[in-house]
Amino acid sequence: MINYDDFFSRSAEQMQESAIRKMGTVLAARRDVISFAPGYPAHDTFPWTAFSDITRELLTGTDGDVLQYGPTRGFRPLLDAITGIMTARGAATAVEQLLITTGSQQGLDLVARVLLDPGDVVLVELPTYTGAITAFRNVQASMVGVRQEEDGVDVAALDETWVRLQREGRRVRMLYVVPNFQNPTGLLIGLDKRQRLLEWAERRNVLIVEDDPYRELYFDDSASEADVRPLKADDTNGRVIYLSSFSKTLAPGFRVAWIVAPAALAAKLELAKQAEDLCTGGLDQRVIYEACRRGVLERQLPLLRDHYRQKRDVMVDALTREFGSEVSWPAPRGGFFLWATLPAAIDADTMLARAVQHGVIYVAGEAFFVDGRGSGRHVVRLAFSSPSHERIREGVARLGRAVREELAATEALAR
Amino acid sequence: MINYDDFFSRSAEQMQESAIRKMGTVLAARRDVISFAPGYPAHDTFPWTAFSDITRELLTGTDGDVLQYGPTRGFRPLLDAITGIMTARGAATAVEQLLITTGSQQGLDLVARVLLDPGDVVLVELPTYTGAITAFRNVQASMVGVRQEEDGVDVAALDETWVRLQREGRRVRMLYVVPNFQNPTGLLIGLDKRQRLLEWAERRNVLIVEDDPYRELYFDDSASEADVRPLKADDTNGRVIYLSSFSKTLAPGFRVAWIVAPAALAAKLELAKQAEDLCTGGLDQRVIYEACRRGVLERQLPLLRDHYRQKRDVMVDALTREFGSEVSWPAPRGGFFLWATLPAAIDADTMLARAVQHGVIYVAGEAFFVDGRGSGRHVVRLAFSSPSHERIREGVARLGRAVREELAATEALAR
Repeated sequence: MINYDDFFSRSAEQMQESAIRKMGTVLAARRDVISFAPGYPAHDTFPWTAFSDITRELLTGTDGDVLQYGPTRGFRPLLDAITGIMTARGAATAVEQLLITTGSQQGLDLVARVLLDPGDVVLVELPTYTGAITAFRNVQASMVGVRQEEDGVDVAALDETWVRLQREGRRVRMLYVVPNFQNPTGLLIGLDKRQRLLEWAERRNVLIVEDDPYRELYFDDSASEADVRPLKADDTNGRVIYLSSFSKTLAPGFRVAWIVAPAALAAKLELAKQAEDLCTGGLDQRVIYEACRRGVLERQLPLLRDHYRQKRDVMVDALTREFGSEVSWPAPRGGFFLWATLPAAIDADTMLARAVQHGVIYVAGEAFFVDGRGSGRHVVRLAFSSPSHERIREGVARLGRAVREELAATEALAR
Repeated sequence: MINYDDFFSRSAEQMQESAIRKMGTVLAARRDVISFAPGYPAHDTFPWTAFSDITRELLTGTDGDVLQYGPTRGFRPLLDAITGIMTARGAATAVEQLLITTGSQQGLDLVARVLLDPGDVVLVELPTYTGAITAFRNVQASMVGVRQEEDGVDVAALDETWVRLQREGRRVRMLYVVPNFQNPTGLLIGLDKRQRLLEWAERRNVLIVEDDPYRELYFDDSASEADVRPLKADDTNGRVIYLSSFSKTLAPGFRVAWIVAPAALAAKLELAKQAEDLCTGGLDQRVIYEACRRGVLERQLPLLRDHYRQKRDVMVDALTREFGSEVSWPAPRGGFFLWATLPAAIDADTMLARAVQHGVIYVAGEAFFVDGRGSGRHVVRLAFSSPSHERIREGVARLGRAVREELAATEALAR
């Protein structure tokens, strides 16, 4: 047999498995495991009946285009519906600035391919979303991390980093941020800081990639729609590339998301998409469109906010009961994730095997850091979005057993 | 506003619009135009009722996974079903060698990303499929064309090309072929030649990418299942990467296709796909799986062979009546396309505007050639797959008017 190592591209040599996807595989193999790992939306919240009705109406065969190849830009009525969504978010968008993508992951990948050459620098938050890390790594970009404060990335540190890189002769192309209920920390960038980031990007001639899948899922006890205003809304100069998705609000199985970018850039992203998959699924786009048109999405949003807020409460209560002050986290004001710092004696990655034994999984923090300094060693990302209240409680109890065992084992080793 | 030209990657600078997709856009804008351009399957052949029944059963909400994120490799029952399909094609495949892709276009893109560095050479047929050209171009590979004979690529010329490139110090990574009813020529690689290509690839240590979307659509007056045996079936050494799709046999709107590759390569392709779109649509994959399991696909195939054979007959008759011996083509023995050489005075690309005026479109041959020598100048690719018999006849009549006007115009110009 051939040794394929001789055939791999430089990009392929560097490809690594996503820590989140890996946990998905563990999960698929063991149904008894309680998963706090992948950020799956709760499928019992999906509007199944509406999807079923819509699909039945679409599949009569009277409109052959439903199952045909479609335009790369996307299904025109859906594009129009998204311009409405963007207006509601404060960022009026023309159709020429819009592109439907096969999930936001494709959006990230297209942005990487169109804007990054090998060695180009992307500034990212410490920690940041692993899917973005993967997309940027696959075009052989360099990622440089900037620490976060409670209201998001530290702007002074950001500029120091830029200055240092500039001095080293490196080309900084973009800043990648998840402004709302960040994956993995759950943090929200403050409104004032959003303005400062825009000004900074303008001053330093850097593009901002704003990845915004969670913004509709604010918890009304601690956040409101005013808090999730996109940077894009105040982008007067075409600096911001904005990504969002229906995966967290309708269902991820449809693989429908979108990018907003200045028209010249959107045109290039479309060309890149042509080569990646020709077009996003025709039925998928039409189901999503009808869910928008018929008000299904609109009706979902308050239910989802409630659903995930309750789950956050259940997880926070369970963690507090289980760990007291031994474990800490920034309070999630929306989204799917709780970012928990475990006792310093624990290496979250090492503990994973023990956790699986106890029937619970999470994503170890390390995977979200690009600085390679072990910054996330004691941290875990816990997704509270998918399991039931009972399973969240039971999962936290299992995590508790894993942590106690691990502490005992490390203490024994130290002695 | 920013000048984004300063921001584009080298890959983005080279991106070009697909000639086929462009015609799709013309078509979407003018419904009265008869299209011989994109190779759309006939939507009136789609098994609408079966799809509707299947979807209703899937969308009850009892299986939440239907609309959830899924494994990157694909929906396991569908992977198993495809191993059955591959066995039937003579190329037994293990699940470890298999990956579901979001259409075969994604398969081509993943292959390009995993196996090609900028400047690496891909050998392609003259002419070849534009979607492959785009995928290879976007990773900045060089494509070098090899002429075709009636039974496929000229093996002597292939080897001469390889030797020349080798001497020039260039790295030839793969040969890309569409062995069955090639897009655009409709040609079939002879069985004997398939063996010779395998031997050649072995001798020269080159991989073969075998793109096989049309193989089920052989026309029983001139081809049989024996003629479409995949190269992969006789690939003893893991030389062949095989791509196929449900787009031409069930429906393209579902975006479900697959790659078979040696396990080590399939694992890398999976990593590349993780970064491109996480996973192919969950509902889409399940609909396709159920269509396989319930025998819908099996029942479709003879109907499709008949359907497209009849349309080929209608187009051949209409062309013969309209043009006599002025226009010639290799007889399509399957698939969607007829590759017609127009009178030498005609530039097919220039004539396109006139054709649109007359209400007919095609893809000008030029787009399928990577040699930049104007080889396809007088040739058009005519897809007979989608229009009705009546529209095929009318479209050919319109094409006749465009050709006669164009000839008169060029003669007037010459005088």
